[in-house]
Parts: sequence; C-alpha cells; structure tokens
Amino acid sequence: MAAVAGVSPKTVSRVINNEPNVRPELAERVLAAIGELGFRRNAMASSLRSGRETATIGLIIEDLANLFYSTIAAEVARVARAHDTHLITVSSEEDPELEQRQFAQLCQRRVDGLVIVPAGADHSYTRPEAEMGMRMVFLDRPPSGVLADSVLVDNEAGARAGIASLLADGHRRIGVVVDSPAIHTARERLAGVRTALAGAGVPYDDSLVRVGVSDPDGAARAVAAMLDANDPPTAFFTGNNRITVGAVRELYRRGSGAALMGFDDFELSALMPRPLTVIAYDVRELGRAAAVRLFERIGGDASWPSEITIPTRLVQRGVEPGAT
Amino acid sequence: MAAVAGVSPKTVSRVINNEPNVRPELAERVLAAIGELGFRRNAMASSLRSGRETATIGLIIEDLANLFYSTIAAEVARVARAHDTHLITVSSEEDPELEQRQFAQLCQRRVDGLVIVPAGADHSYTRPEAEMGMRMVFLDRPPSGVLADSVLVDNEAGARAGIASLLADGHRRIGVVVDSPAIHTARERLAGVRTALAGAGVPYDDSLVRVGVSDPDGAARAVAAMLDANDPPTAFFTGNNRITVGAVRELYRRGSGAALMGFDDFELSALMPRPLTVIAYDVRELGRAAAVRLFERIGGDASWPSEITIPTRLVQRGVEPGAT
Repeated sequence: MAAVAGVSPKTVSRVINNEPNVRPELAERVLAAIGELGFRRNAMASSLRSGRETATIGLIIEDLANLFYSTIAAEVARVARAHDTHLITVSSEEDPELEQRQFAQLCQRRVDGLVIVPAGADHSYTRPEAEMGMRMVFLDRPPSGVLADSVLVDNEAGARAGIASLLADGHRRIGVVVDSPAIHTARERLAGVRTALAGAGVPYDDSLVRVGVSDPDGAARAVAAMLDANDPPTAFFTGNNRITVGAVRELYRRGSGAALMGFDDFELSALMPRPLTVIAYDVRELGRAAAVRLFERIGGDASWPSEITIPTRLVQRGVEPGAT
Repeated sequence: MAAVAGVSPKTVSRVINNEPNVRPELAERVLAAIGELGFRRNAMASSLRSGRETATIGLIIEDLANLFYSTIAAEVARVARAHDTHLITVSSEEDPELEQRQFAQLCQRRVDGLVIVPAGADHSYTRPEAEMGMRMVFLDRPPSGVLADSVLVDNEAGARAGIASLLADGHRRIGVVVDSPAIHTARERLAGVRTALAGAGVPYDDSLVRVGVSDPDGAARAVAAMLDANDPPTAFFTGNNRITVGAVRELYRRGSGAALMGFDDFELSALMPRPLTVIAYDVRELGRAAAVRLFERIGGDASWPSEITIPTRLVQRGVEPGAT
C-alpha cells in the first residue's frame, strides 16, 4: 500500500486512522491507492461469490413516505422483479448511524447487493463488506471513502441553468434558499448558483442566501424575512421541492409577484396557485439506472466504477394568477 | 365440515368448487363453516410455528410510487423495525394474478407474516397457507374467502358525512365521480352517498353518477361532461384523491364555482388553486394498526379475527379564489 502511494507506512497509518497533520495531497494519494487496491480486491471477491444467493437486494433510503424516495423504491423493485429478486427497503431517517446499522443488518442477511442513498458523508464503513464482495450502487449522493458506482442528478448544471434563466429575465437580486451544504445535492446546487452569478458579473450577496433550510415552514420564514428586508429580492431560487412548496405558500399568501425557480419537480406542481419554474429530472430514471447497474454487477461485471449523470430541464408550472 | 354446516357433502363440494345453482343461504352456511374450521386450524398452526423464523414480514400493495401506499409502507416498516424485523414490499399493480404470485413467493421465503392490500376480490387462494400458520392482516379492503384481521377506513360513514355537508349547504344536484364499484372502497363510498341522499329525500339520479373513473384525466372529462349537460350539478363528490385532483383541474380551468367534496386528503391539498373539502383520515394509522395487529399475531395471539375501523373527518382545503 505504502509502495503504491509512494509514502511511508507511518503516513498510511495516519491517514487511515484519520489523524491530523497529514498534508492533504499525501492523504489524497494514500486514499486513492487504498481505493484502487480495495476496488480490485472487491471485484475479485464479487466474481467469486456465487451469483444469486438470496435473490434479495436491499435499498437504504431516507424516508419511504416521501414521494421522491418511494418513486425510486418502486423503480428499483420493478427492475428487481424482472430479475426474480425481492427488494427489502429500509429507512435511514437521514441518520448516518442508523444507516450504518441498516447496512450491517442487510449484509448479515446476505443480500445480493445494495442501492444506497447515503445519509452520512463518510462511507468507509462499507469497505470491509465491499472487499468481501458486496455490490453497491450509490444513488443521488456520491460515495466517499469507498469506490462504487453512483447515479447522480446533474445538480450543478441544473442550478446554473435555473439562475441563468432568472438573469436573462432581468433579475439581479435573487434570494437563494437551500438545505445544509453538508448535503451533497445542496452543496452542488449552491455551487451552480455561484457559477451562474459569477458568469453574469452579478456579485454573490450573503444577505440573499439562507442555508440549512430543510422544511416548508423554514422556507416560508426565510422567504418572508428576505421580502421584509430593504431592497428585497425580485426572484427566488429554492434548492429542493420541500423548500419550493414553502416559498409558494409564502409568496401566494402575500400576493408577491416575485419569480420563483425551484429545484425538483413534484406532484401537483402544475396546480400550485401561482406560476413557478422547476428544474426537473426523471426520478424514475434515477432508480432504474441504479438498479440496472446493480444487476450488471451481480451478473459479474467487474469494470471500473462508473458515475451516471441524469440531466435536468426547466419546466413552467403553477396556474396563472387570477384565472378564477 | 358438512356436519358443521348442516348440509350434504355434495353441497360442500359444489360451494368449494364455485359451481352454479347453489342457494345463496346454503353457500353462506358452508363458507362460514369452512371459515370457522379453517381459522381454528390456522390459529393452532400459527401457535405451533416458532415465533421468529426469518425476522421478515411482507407487504403486498398496489403501487409504491403512490404516496398513500408508500406512507403505509413507511409505517409498517417502522413498526417492523421496532420488532427487529425487515420488511419486503411488493407491488401487485392492481392485478389479482400478480397478487397471487407475489403471495406465493413471499410464503416460499417463509416470511413471519403478511400485510395485504388486496387487488382481487377473492382471497380463498390464501387459505392453504393460512391453515399452515401464515399470519395475515388485510388493509384498506376486507378479505373474502378467508378469515383474517382487517384494518379499514370508515368509507360509508365518511361519504355519508360528506354528502350530508353538501346537502346542508343547500345543494340538491350533486355530481358523483367514483372508481369501479368492483373495488371495495368505491362501493362503500357510493353506498354512503346513496344513504345520505335517501335520508334527505333527494332522489338518486343516474345521470349525475359516473363510475369506473380511475385517473385525473378521466375525472376531468367526467366533470366536464356533467357541467356541459342541461341543469348541471352545483356540487361534486369525488371518490378518491386521484379523481379529486382531476376535478380541481377542470373546475379551476373553467372558473366554476361548484362546490367540491373529495374522499381522501392529499399532500398539497391546502395549496390547490380553489376551495375544496376533503374527507380525511389518518393514513399512517392505517399502516400502523395493521402492522401492530400482525405482530400481535406473530406474538401468539390466537383470538377471533378483528376488524379495526379508522374514522374520517371533513377538512377545508385549497386557497380562496382571487387572493393574488
């Protein structure tokens, strides 16, 4: 390992044990070497596993009672059924520790593979199982600390296109409401916002950005606070559909004419009581692509991990005001 | 068996084989006797099974990518987790044959029990497994041809209350749009409509009733046709949330002031672009009650099957017109 990375064994040990004072570029090199070796071993172990031990796969998601995740679960189950395989779905409730326990239990059941929408930011805990041949595909958020396939939305490009559209309509003061940047999707979407603003020469104004907003009520409060401030935004960018719904509610309640651009489409967006634009993508395709990739792995595919990206598009939603 | 039912063995055979020309009251007696004997045998077999063989239960539902079912799945999974049990969810896609195949596969896996939202109208196919000790709870629709616990919405009373509310507001011409009466919930809700109308002395007018409507587009067409007829309805009763959404769309599009009363609440109903009333009930409680009952059975409860009824209530939804 140390030889592959070109560093001392002591450095390898310090990186693995997450000790401080390791130069970032050394840590990168060590992790890359670990990843590569680990992945080679996994691929070999996986091909040694007999293909279909339990005819069961597992899906770890945040919350089944959320249409985004249940749509993914339905697609994964559909692909599984075509392979005569049952799907066990478990919920991590956005809790990284619960995710680890659920992962361990599903591995103990000897499922043939796992689709994971990770809650935590560090998935090195999966490495021992991966090295023993557990096939895994990460969905919506990329893996960290382990090499594996992933299927992701093109978050950065989608947010860029959304902001570019608002800028093209003449907006210069755009209120931005997103979830915590600790979450991959929120981080990427915020990055897209910054890139689009910078590209148009519009300064990034911290007073117009609220992060860590995770539900409709919080979103409504964030929008209200920005509208009540001096020189309020003429448009809003909302980072996911829960935030968008809260923004719709508050903008409608006030009769505000501010433009609204929200990431994620959602059921009944076409019947929202005011116009909005959504950054839409094919949620079913997310689930389908992940499940198809997993069954390729179960079928013996030992190629280098791939990252599949699902594109986005802008769609007009909501009803025109005053039609009644 | 014939002795218990007080009929000839030939009659028993004819009832079991579903032959014609058996008097209904004889058939009833035979089926009741079969049910009672079957159930006694099941309860004994169930108690002989060692409690926790696979630490897995199964859930058979129509479609996971429908928030009603995914909410139920999430609750069943939550109760299962509290019992250190995994949940396998399979979709019947409203196809009785697929339901039977899914049932057989889950029994082959030796799950500890099943929650079933039945697609078909006849569940006598489950009897052999039930008699070997498979615990089952039927959800949202009652079992037929087998004795088992069930958890149901109070459909008839809910529809009655909804129509009574429209009548109290002075409506006499009420358009009714429901799914096929072959479906238990649609049949019960339609029965509630008839009872409420009869109680108020308002004649049941076939020209104001559309049955077999199963999606929003069909509902929008049904509402449009009734509004375009002579002497159009001043109010609509819609039999489930998919039908309600189609009715909202069509009524909003026309700027119609007709009242709307829809069975089932739904996410974002509060943001629909016109007022409506929904007949709401606790969907989580449906799933929770079914799972709790199943684990009571797994824990050894051999009491006579129970029917748990979930109550409904009327809730105002939608936004007031012209607030923008």
